[in-house]
Amino acid sequence: MKLLLVFPLLSLFFFCSASCEVIKALPGQPANVGFKQYSGYILVQPQHGRALFYYFVEADSANPLANPLTLWLNGGPGCSSLGFGAFMEHGPFQPREDGHLVKNQYSWNLESNMLYLESPIGVGFSYSNTSSDYLGLNDATTAKDNMQFLLNWFEEFPQYRNSDLYLSGESYAGHYIPQLADLILDYNKRFSGRPIKLKAIALGNPLLDPDISVINAEFLWSHGVISDETLLLSKTVCNASRHLKESIHQNLSKECIHVLNKLEEEMGSYTDPGDLILPICFSPTLLGQTFFQGTHNRLHWKQLAMSSAVANDPCRVDEIRQYLNTPKVQESLHANTTHLSSVWEFCGGHLSYQRDSIGINIIPLLSKLLKRSIPVLLFNGDQDSKIPLTQTRIIANMLAKELKLVPFGSYAPWLVGGLSHLAK
Amino acid sequence: MKLLLVFPLLSLFFFCSASCEVIKALPGQPANVGFKQYSGYILVQPQHGRALFYYFVEADSANPLANPLTLWLNGGPGCSSLGFGAFMEHGPFQPREDGHLVKNQYSWNLESNMLYLESPIGVGFSYSNTSSDYLGLNDATTAKDNMQFLLNWFEEFPQYRNSDLYLSGESYAGHYIPQLADLILDYNKRFSGRPIKLKAIALGNPLLDPDISVINAEFLWSHGVISDETLLLSKTVCNASRHLKESIHQNLSKECIHVLNKLEEEMGSYTDPGDLILPICFSPTLLGQTFFQGTHNRLHWKQLAMSSAVANDPCRVDEIRQYLNTPKVQESLHANTTHLSSVWEFCGGHLSYQRDSIGINIIPLLSKLLKRSIPVLLFNGDQDSKIPLTQTRIIANMLAKELKLVPFGSYAPWLVGGLSHLAK
Repeated sequence: MKLLLVFPLLSLFFFCSASCEVIKALPGQPANVGFKQYSGYILVQPQHGRALFYYFVEADSANPLANPLTLWLNGGPGCSSLGFGAFMEHGPFQPREDGHLVKNQYSWNLESNMLYLESPIGVGFSYSNTSSDYLGLNDATTAKDNMQFLLNWFEEFPQYRNSDLYLSGESYAGHYIPQLADLILDYNKRFSGRPIKLKAIALGNPLLDPDISVINAEFLWSHGVISDETLLLSKTVCNASRHLKESIHQNLSKECIHVLNKLEEEMGSYTDPGDLILPICFSPTLLGQTFFQGTHNRLHWKQLAMSSAVANDPCRVDEIRQYLNTPKVQESLHANTTHLSSVWEFCGGHLSYQRDSIGINIIPLLSKLLKRSIPVLLFNGDQDSKIPLTQTRIIANMLAKELKLVPFGSYAPWLVGGLSHLAK
Repeated sequence: MKLLLVFPLLSLFFFCSASCEVIKALPGQPANVGFKQYSGYILVQPQHGRALFYYFVEADSANPLANPLTLWLNGGPGCSSLGFGAFMEHGPFQPREDGHLVKNQYSWNLESNMLYLESPIGVGFSYSNTSSDYLGLNDATTAKDNMQFLLNWFEEFPQYRNSDLYLSGESYAGHYIPQLADLILDYNKRFSGRPIKLKAIALGNPLLDPDISVINAEFLWSHGVISDETLLLSKTVCNASRHLKESIHQNLSKECIHVLNKLEEEMGSYTDPGDLILPICFSPTLLGQTFFQGTHNRLHWKQLAMSSAVANDPCRVDEIRQYLNTPKVQESLHANTTHLSSVWEFCGGHLSYQRDSIGINIIPLLSKLLKRSIPVLLFNGDQDSKIPLTQTRIIANMLAKELKLVPFGSYAPWLVGGLSHLAK
């Protein structure tokens, strides 16, 4: 009798592996959605009950498998790829106040199958049943979990195992993505089986080198945000790089606190450091999260977490938070099945990320990846004062010089639909 | 019989002096306009038939005379205060495609009586019947005509003769306004009668010093518009200041043309140098005017003319041009009564302004005005690469240092309706 029972269950499980993660329809989604969506958990450490949440959107195409696969990670450390990447930036739908989803005409799934991953645990719907897992989080554990996620995800979606794979992300994903790429190349080298077809990585407004990426006083000055005096203070007393490193080591000097306070005073409460020209949403929840915090809580690495992602409609944050905390939405997403102790948030509140990871210089790893023939795209928004475009450009130039790369096109505006987006 | 005829005519003329310039209603204007509008010509040189066109909007207030009087001039040299200042920027109405006027909730006439002046002749509806008048135009003739305009205008509107007077303008009005202010102070000194109550001047994105105001390579670089290489070329080979001065003296060097070409290539045809983040209007007329010109026609001082005024809706230019060329609109404005040979344009095509005026350094005059107790407000849009905010700030600092001015407030965002406009 036992055997008779076991076989049907096993075959049911196998049958379910990818298909039972299919999203029938997201609440409020528009009619005539022509592509499939999947979401759910991938166990990366079964003994600990450590599980990462993903949202997978197939390419909007007659034959999705003819398109590449892109894994997307948002920065932080500790911010949600589901909230920022998928529902605010480049996923297929964006929630509106009434709970309806509207189509995003710039969705990346018009060109690629999009895999949004909540990583590490503590981010969004990702979690562990072992509370000590939350304590030791750092770049190494994150990269390892992301690698395990990818391998296990391919088990559930074997049809994508041979797809061209792109890794992309923004801000602190400048750490996550190159480190994951490195593990993938190691995996391909170690195992003689089919390689994972990693084609390229793309990093937006990335934190790459704490000595370069965050230097922002000249940028703020040239954008009218700070005074000559504060520019001078930043050049002579404490720049954003020193401030970041002091924050990492939890030994903030009086000088740095003084300069930061001056700078924040001049920027004011209604200027988003991640998007200088963005109007501010007066929603009390958003203001509560980003602005009404004491100076000592506003460590730079926390600011990094609230990345430059809040595009166009600054109040969309509220709509997304509300949407993703709706029980019916969570049900349709196969999310929060273990009933997490806190609500879904854009940036994980109880995440304890080891700060020394933040100080790692990623440039040598980019160099290594380039030498191993992985193309690296660096892109940068022009209104972000946390990782200014000038700094990403300096790093691109350093790499080009070191590796003797030569331009294959001339510096020019990047036009989308005939409009200049000032990406050069 | 003659005498009998003459008296009624004279009295009619006297009666008309201000009232026959009343605008009954502008075609398409909204209902319930609670303030008066006037427009027409003021002869500044009757023998030559030299006449300047004005549009005067009383303050939107129960008692307009309780508000100050502001004279507004747009830059160029050669661009229209009616088209830019009044109908695009801060007048009470803005034309829409269907020829209707919509209310501008930010109209300056909510705070002041606004006098928009088309100056010098050749701008908009202003003209001279003596064609040689167009040849000798320069800062001195413009200031003199503007002064004569003001005195004659007060004859027609004697009720404003005692009003607090503010002078304001943008771009090349950085020349016009201080020079007019200087003549007003001289007039007050020379004539023992009632002084003209000049209270202050305000200059937006002003051309003040050709060595400072136009330097823009660092600004363009920090905004992602140009490459490192072109920044270097601008620093070492030819900067915008040298280019401007070479243009003035019509001896453009090969080096400067080379750097300008590089810069324009990288900026592309769809980026407005006067507003880097403005989407481009694809209207053929606008594109024809600003973009499809050969390099040699694109002298910097002509670029200055197309000032940063095209705010928000880049296609509004077309609507305004169409509106102001409508015969019924011209009739209601008492404009084009002499049937000018060309249509109304934003920037005067046949204006021949003496180029050496453009090279004048206005800073000493600002210093003189400040010493004579005329407050000077310098303000600057944050997206203008022709007169970048960084340059206006440098000039403000120079003046503050020279005159030992001290700040009476701290550097801070300027909030309008709760939104930061990044004006500091």
